[in-house]
Amino acid sequence: MSLIVQKYGGTSVGDPARIQRVASRIAHTRREGHDVIVVVSAMGNTTDDLIALAGEITSEPPGREMDMLLTAGERISMALLAMALDVEDVEAVSFTGSQAGILTDDAHGEARITGIRGDRVAKSLADHKVVIVAGFQGVSPDTKEVTTLGRGGSDATAVALAAAHGAVVCEIYTDVDGVFTADPRVVPTARKLNEVSFDEMLELAASGAGVLMARSVEFGRRFNIPIHVRSSFHDEDGTWIKETTMEQAIISGVAHDISEAKVTVHSVPDQPGVAADLFESLANEGVNVDMIVQNVSSSGQTDISFTVPKAQSTAALATAEEVARTLGAGGVDVRMETGKVSLVGAGMKTESGIAGRVFRALAAEGINIDMISTSTIRISCVIDQSDVPKAVRALVSAFELDSVAEEVGA
Amino acid sequence: MSLIVQKYGGTSVGDPARIQRVASRIAHTRREGHDVIVVVSAMGNTTDDLIALAGEITSEPPGREMDMLLTAGERISMALLAMALDVEDVEAVSFTGSQAGILTDDAHGEARITGIRGDRVAKSLADHKVVIVAGFQGVSPDTKEVTTLGRGGSDATAVALAAAHGAVVCEIYTDVDGVFTADPRVVPTARKLNEVSFDEMLELAASGAGVLMARSVEFGRRFNIPIHVRSSFHDEDGTWIKETTMEQAIISGVAHDISEAKVTVHSVPDQPGVAADLFESLANEGVNVDMIVQNVSSSGQTDISFTVPKAQSTAALATAEEVARTLGAGGVDVRMETGKVSLVGAGMKTESGIAGRVFRALAAEGINIDMISTSTIRISCVIDQSDVPKAVRALVSAFELDSVAEEVGA
Repeated sequence: MSLIVQKYGGTSVGDPARIQRVASRIAHTRREGHDVIVVVSAMGNTTDDLIALAGEITSEPPGREMDMLLTAGERISMALLAMALDVEDVEAVSFTGSQAGILTDDAHGEARITGIRGDRVAKSLADHKVVIVAGFQGVSPDTKEVTTLGRGGSDATAVALAAAHGAVVCEIYTDVDGVFTADPRVVPTARKLNEVSFDEMLELAASGAGVLMARSVEFGRRFNIPIHVRSSFHDEDGTWIKETTMEQAIISGVAHDISEAKVTVHSVPDQPGVAADLFESLANEGVNVDMIVQNVSSSGQTDISFTVPKAQSTAALATAEEVARTLGAGGVDVRMETGKVSLVGAGMKTESGIAGRVFRALAAEGINIDMISTSTIRISCVIDQSDVPKAVRALVSAFELDSVAEEVGA
Repeated sequence: MSLIVQKYGGTSVGDPARIQRVASRIAHTRREGHDVIVVVSAMGNTTDDLIALAGEITSEPPGREMDMLLTAGERISMALLAMALDVEDVEAVSFTGSQAGILTDDAHGEARITGIRGDRVAKSLADHKVVIVAGFQGVSPDTKEVTTLGRGGSDATAVALAAAHGAVVCEIYTDVDGVFTADPRVVPTARKLNEVSFDEMLELAASGAGVLMARSVEFGRRFNIPIHVRSSFHDEDGTWIKETTMEQAIISGVAHDISEAKVTVHSVPDQPGVAADLFESLANEGVNVDMIVQNVSSSGQTDISFTVPKAQSTAALATAEEVARTLGAGGVDVRMETGKVSLVGAGMKTESGIAGRVFRALAAEGINIDMISTSTIRISCVIDQSDVPKAVRALVSAFELDSVAEEVGA
């Protein structure tokens, strides 16, 4: 008997009728002979409603109490799901993150999972019960306080439980069919990927593909747990994310991201320690820097550009200006209307000429490239925000990532 | 520095604005130099809303999961209250029933408090924090499961915490001004009692006075914790319930109850063991019997009457009919349109003639008495339900329990 972990998001358990549908699906998996751990998010907009309630009282709620408040959300959905399974004659038991032994650090609101204490879940599985676990929450063994995991936390809960209890797969149920070669809202002909490697999925997630957060893919890779992203509305396979050994497609997909701004520090003296000064200062201010590009200098001066979340651009500008003054650099400017397109594919490692084809495809559309950054399996270009949809379509077409291309035998 | 326990019901914390008002009151108590433990119920209709959600999924939810669901309610109100205290610059921390060490048996939905493990609360008090505790909930040390305490559970939580941590008073904040000599909705001139003994309050609660449940009064009496029932809308004193040693008023008040039905078994053979057969059978069926009256027999046959909650009258009838058949008794009938009025007062023990005055007052209004039952400090009469308001007013007037009588020097 193999163990399957299933994770259902807030939309999938949005009301009692949907909870009943989820229960039937779990009952079906159970009748096929599997042990099942189910991870649930809070129903629909519950979390947002609770945040709004807190907002009526204070704009700066203490983190501990905010976590106490928000963890009420999954408590409701998991108890209702256990009741719905009871109706299906499936023995089930619901556990909070703390009861399920999800151990975290004590960073309220954005805690990281540090370990799993699995006795209680293991005992319930041995008793032939479906175990339902509240996603997004845990407990700090140091402070004994309840914590929440921040964005994508329920996926992380699911993959971590799958790793700890030796599941054969972690199924992430969602409202889309899987991972696509590009965002279907931008490229309607984008193709669903049947399979993608952990490394590629990590690059796609980091480059803006929203289906799965990078942290849960990291977990999957570290413990080699296959992740199956699939729709909660039908039974067809979605996308399998795993450490694949088969011959891979050269290119998996195109991701895009318009959530970042570009900051450029001009005329920086080209001497050791300059970049360190700048990025240490930014880190101290809590600014999350994504891409960094510095050109080779010939004049003894250089420009350094980097991207940051748009919400942090004001803080980044202030910090960069201060550092620029100290270093005797020129001015700092921020460009908000910025976007990024990334081509991801494990085949890039061995296939040459991919970068050239990317730049050619964008040039053919008259798109100017601001910054370029590459990893062994990714090429990212920062461009004008208004050019992003055109760029995504151009790359999908150039690398035959659409279903039309597939049909004609690409 | 003395410890005060304050309990706020669902209406008092019904929305963010009210939660802020409660926070100011707590902050005021804190600034007066007291340590404070606050017990809160779920906001407004939260509990009913959660019950309705469960009802959309099943009519028979597993008790464990129902408790998991309902305990989300206080989690929300207590976290919001902690945030509101933070705004008032009062250090506070909120605890679930389990975190506050409220130990119970494992009877989900109607658990009894079996003990308090107070380390965590004590430590927070020592750290000069206001401690907020979720009412109505606890944890069973045997099963490690979260439980709820059933009706009146938050009051019981408050009094139990007051006893365990040595509070000087347990304040129960509510939407009425205190305990009255009669229900003010029936007798608008009913008088607020400044003080009432535990014994009297127990009889009043058992006789239908709804302000406080008998179980929390029991706790208060057992551990001698004064309970102060008062309004959350103003600062005036309400009613103190304590083990009073002062000279007491002869009569404290009139309670009434229209939630019970009367069952009569006719022509029962007057022989030993008959009553035992009947009431053992009823107990086995889970029927809660309140009053029991059996008349002296002269003919070798007698009638036995008893009252039960109206909701249990069908079960009571079926059981009584079966026992009647076995015993060779006559028929069984149930009367639903039944009510009970009770006069309560510690002074009855020493003052003679009270019973006569009760019966005279009712007779003067043409009210027929069906059943009579007495304790040392209570006289209860079962009458026609439609006569109840008239009977309450008659007794208030006869024993000068209204504020009009007080003004003229009663």
